[in-house]
Amino acid sequence: MTNTTLKPGLEGVIAAETRLSRVDGQAGELIIAGFPVEDLAGKATFEETVYLLWHDTLPNAGSLAIFRQGLAAQRALPTATLDLLRAAAAQKVSVIDALRMAAASLSLQAPDDNPSGDPQRDALIAIASFPTIVAATWRLRQGQEPIAPRDDLGHAANFLYMLSGETPSEARVRGLETYLNTVVDHGLNASTFTARVIISTQADMISAVVGALGALKGPLHGGAPGPALDTVFAIGEASKAEAYLRSKLEKGERLMGFGHRVYKVRDPRAEVLSKAAEQLYQAGGDMGLYNLVRHVEQTAVTLLAEYKPGRNLQTNVEFYTALLLHGLDLPTELFTPTFAIGRVGGWTAHCFEQLETGRLIRPKALYIGETNRRWE
Amino acid sequence: MTNTTLKPGLEGVIAAETRLSRVDGQAGELIIAGFPVEDLAGKATFEETVYLLWHDTLPNAGSLAIFRQGLAAQRALPTATLDLLRAAAAQKVSVIDALRMAAASLSLQAPDDNPSGDPQRDALIAIASFPTIVAATWRLRQGQEPIAPRDDLGHAANFLYMLSGETPSEARVRGLETYLNTVVDHGLNASTFTARVIISTQADMISAVVGALGALKGPLHGGAPGPALDTVFAIGEASKAEAYLRSKLEKGERLMGFGHRVYKVRDPRAEVLSKAAEQLYQAGGDMGLYNLVRHVEQTAVTLLAEYKPGRNLQTNVEFYTALLLHGLDLPTELFTPTFAIGRVGGWTAHCFEQLETGRLIRPKALYIGETNRRWE
Repeated sequence: MTNTTLKPGLEGVIAAETRLSRVDGQAGELIIAGFPVEDLAGKATFEETVYLLWHDTLPNAGSLAIFRQGLAAQRALPTATLDLLRAAAAQKVSVIDALRMAAASLSLQAPDDNPSGDPQRDALIAIASFPTIVAATWRLRQGQEPIAPRDDLGHAANFLYMLSGETPSEARVRGLETYLNTVVDHGLNASTFTARVIISTQADMISAVVGALGALKGPLHGGAPGPALDTVFAIGEASKAEAYLRSKLEKGERLMGFGHRVYKVRDPRAEVLSKAAEQLYQAGGDMGLYNLVRHVEQTAVTLLAEYKPGRNLQTNVEFYTALLLHGLDLPTELFTPTFAIGRVGGWTAHCFEQLETGRLIRPKALYIGETNRRWE
Repeated sequence: MTNTTLKPGLEGVIAAETRLSRVDGQAGELIIAGFPVEDLAGKATFEETVYLLWHDTLPNAGSLAIFRQGLAAQRALPTATLDLLRAAAAQKVSVIDALRMAAASLSLQAPDDNPSGDPQRDALIAIASFPTIVAATWRLRQGQEPIAPRDDLGHAANFLYMLSGETPSEARVRGLETYLNTVVDHGLNASTFTARVIISTQADMISAVVGALGALKGPLHGGAPGPALDTVFAIGEASKAEAYLRSKLEKGERLMGFGHRVYKVRDPRAEVLSKAAEQLYQAGGDMGLYNLVRHVEQTAVTLLAEYKPGRNLQTNVEFYTALLLHGLDLPTELFTPTFAIGRVGGWTAHCFEQLETGRLIRPKALYIGETNRRWE
């Protein structure tokens, strides 16, 4: 062993080079393939963002049309995958577990003698299928039949359509695109790292994506935006915010939606999503919840500075994710699965990048067990 | 960033402490939970080995009986999992992909509101189900109906029974137990590391195991024991070995079954499996193939020293894995899935160990992309 320093959690270890995103937690900056997230997220379609990640350049009109068609053509699920989702719904399996199960079964669409599969085809299948799986799962859980995808709609619009059966307004599509773009990539988070470790063995893209989904659902991954909004609902009206939050802090309880392992200033994604939520609620004509949330945020940040001085706890991405997705009528149980619908774009791009290096990711362990046992 | 040194592949980085196994590639030693592999593998049942990994001690008779019953009770598959395997067989999905799909669906047996599930229960379900999945998949691929598991047989015996419908001889059961014990754990290989990364988010055990299966199937993981035996079959008889191998080496071709990234002397697992194969073929009454393989091995090692001096290329675990599993009538396509049936014992044990640390595994990436793009 050339290096005997234990790095639990691999903190501070640089495991890969990437041109996909740069997270600067001190400055509160996130760059996505060269673009500040606040410049890209509200303007690009999700297809443009994924194309950008895959190719390191935005598509021209022709390339974009081909890419959109390629994705749209892969939206339908194999019959066996739908059967599996019916069984999952009957067993009340959580939506994120159902998504992981169904994603694993996508190899039915892409059987291959080559253990590495066809990464490009498999990445398209994964990205295209996620919204169909999530929408079908949710409808089955509500006792409704799944709605077949439409190939004349964009990726985000089609997801909203498959949930409700209604063609969504431009404002709602824009809201969802902005969310998906905002969360599409975020450095070597645990799910993205999982995808890179798996594909580094030259396994197939579906295997990598399924592994990443497993990591994403873990509470420590940071993809649980539900509780932040629950606090807002519990508060109910602006005048009660300070007393409610103060009482929580007095009891030593944590305020959900504030603070991040990496960002020491306001998470730049919170800014983008806050603006997207404002536009969505404005288009919907009811600013009540939006205004309440802003008030709760400002009160919370002020109180956190008072109760936890020096910690500089700012609103994180979960807080405005919850507001935006709620405005799109997504139930809390779909927040993490919708996060996955965005992040799978980053996972696939990281897998392509990892495949280019050709290198197996294989750290060492330090053995601390017994050495002298003998069978008696 | 406190450390700006890039560690691609994380080579030499120590990512975890473990009491599960120690790989000493220089000395050619493998310790499994305190026991030299050559002492443990040929004596323990697979259930004893898994118990040892989980509890850091061998079970007494009572604990072993309870553990065996607990595993045996989880062997049957959910109907939806069997339906999925039928669809996979119809699509000619590879056995290892079918295993990954079916393993992902095991959450049907363990639906849970808690995203972390019940790690102990889920680990039992995973270990108990793998042989049933692999045997059912294989039979369906042959156009045969799956055989239901028997709970009066041990783990290894029941797998052989479900493949053929015949109660296996003691010698065959011993051969398989020795194989499963030999490969149950091997430091932080890529699949085990994948499992630890996933569970480090506090995701559930099924997610971790499914991610690990994805990594295991990658060609760089080192679980492809088929080609080694193909060489032996191509040689056919001892007198042709030298000419055949010399011609391959003259052409610069690689000899499958020799050399390992970690072991610089003979892989200790090769020794154990060679002895197990000898006993199995002796019990079967035909030593022809065994003797041919020994001859090919000796010839290959001699020729490798001549053609690649200083490299010290020795027989690796794949070489004798192929011989042993072939002797158990396992077809080549089941070699990697059978490897998984053993290694899942190690994955689950590593997950328990990782959960104890409570720590998220999250390295950093070094951004090397553009920084000044703007949307036009």
